[in-house]
Amino acid sequence: MNLILLDDTDFLDRHQACIRDPRRLQHLHDVHHVEIGDTLTLGRREGGIGRGRLTEFSGQRAVFEFEALDQAPPAPLPIELILALPRPRMLARTLEHVTALGVKSITLMHTRRVEKSYWQSPELHPDKIHQHLVLGLEQARDTRLPSVSLEPRFKPFVEDRLAGWLDERQGLLAHPGTPAPCPRGIEHPTILVVGPEGGFIDYEVDTLLDVGCQGIHLGERILRVETAVIALLSRLA
Amino acid sequence: MNLILLDDTDFLDRHQACIRDPRRLQHLHDVHHVEIGDTLTLGRREGGIGRGRLTEFSGQRAVFEFEALDQAPPAPLPIELILALPRPRMLARTLEHVTALGVKSITLMHTRRVEKSYWQSPELHPDKIHQHLVLGLEQARDTRLPSVSLEPRFKPFVEDRLAGWLDERQGLLAHPGTPAPCPRGIEHPTILVVGPEGGFIDYEVDTLLDVGCQGIHLGERILRVETAVIALLSRLA
Repeated sequence: MNLILLDDTDFLDRHQACIRDPRRLQHLHDVHHVEIGDTLTLGRREGGIGRGRLTEFSGQRAVFEFEALDQAPPAPLPIELILALPRPRMLARTLEHVTALGVKSITLMHTRRVEKSYWQSPELHPDKIHQHLVLGLEQARDTRLPSVSLEPRFKPFVEDRLAGWLDERQGLLAHPGTPAPCPRGIEHPTILVVGPEGGFIDYEVDTLLDVGCQGIHLGERILRVETAVIALLSRLA
Repeated sequence: MNLILLDDTDFLDRHQACIRDPRRLQHLHDVHHVEIGDTLTLGRREGGIGRGRLTEFSGQRAVFEFEALDQAPPAPLPIELILALPRPRMLARTLEHVTALGVKSITLMHTRRVEKSYWQSPELHPDKIHQHLVLGLEQARDTRLPSVSLEPRFKPFVEDRLAGWLDERQGLLAHPGTPAPCPRGIEHPTILVVGPEGGFIDYEVDTLLDVGCQGIHLGERILRVETAVIALLSRLA
């Protein structure tokens, strides 16, 4: 936690907030080794950031006092991510990575090589997804949660919805073997589409190109999805 | 395994290799669902790559036949990585990530914020390190193992050895808050220095700058080491 993310319900008044949940209390104790009087970085969810002083700390509650949470959080990344649903453990880590990198829109999509069982994973429960997003925000000192949507049917999603989104953004399809290398730095709002382990099948690639995506690659090395997503976002950003 | 990495001892003759270890046999069975006659990508350690046909497959052995393993492996990344020793689980994943990305020289170094206990971890055993490197090579279809060295003393390593290496390479110190952004693409052989979770202490930053490193940053977001290393290598590559 490089930032303590405060929900509206955490605020006692305009200058005080109280944390009660065991996860954050334990982290303050075990990792930050906080003591009364310590100053930490706080952020209001969807709002500003500032420094707060710890005025009370027990096993049950931590109270912070602050002047104002009025600094802007870091700029979002102008890249929306569409990702073939990864297997559950990789999903959890990938949500944290891409949230920390500043992505604000994440769509998890079905493709042929996504195992159907992944859609039944408890990691897809909204509470679990929310936890991983919060960990990503706390890491990167951000306050603005990404939106996450699930698209369990490939064709209607790509042909009916993604096609429309591409009227106003460029779509980049990361796929090994396509001719164009991944651009360095983007100048327009971008949708990045990343396939599953094992890749998209030909039909999916054709469908994505047909609706207006442009194929890009990261070189001849085949990377795990988790590695590739970070490498692509960093190269594009 | 996007490539089956063959040791010299796996070769039966110039056109046949036999795999006997349970890890690879199981992976061929469970993930590749191989059958006799299937064609897979093979690579000779430190050598070339080619396609081989499975001619025998049992619980004990898999035999491949091939014409030649004569294609070049992917180009190495001209970046040497010096990394504060991460905690064991993150070390394992990071070794795989950076090997897949093509780094050929990895130095794991002590710094103030590296917990001393990490140096006792079984993950630092040469066999364990080797396993993670092999996983990274198999992922990226590479055959050339990175070298990994351990530097448990910060000051003598930086002042006596790193200082000398920097005569012929540029050194980039990734450190939040330094003025220069991480360059996009490098033109010279480069040494990238990355700190531990929690960062370098001021003395360490000063020492690294004194011996000739240049500070660079990835923006105001604070990333986990695992994420930052991939993002830095991808931005620089």
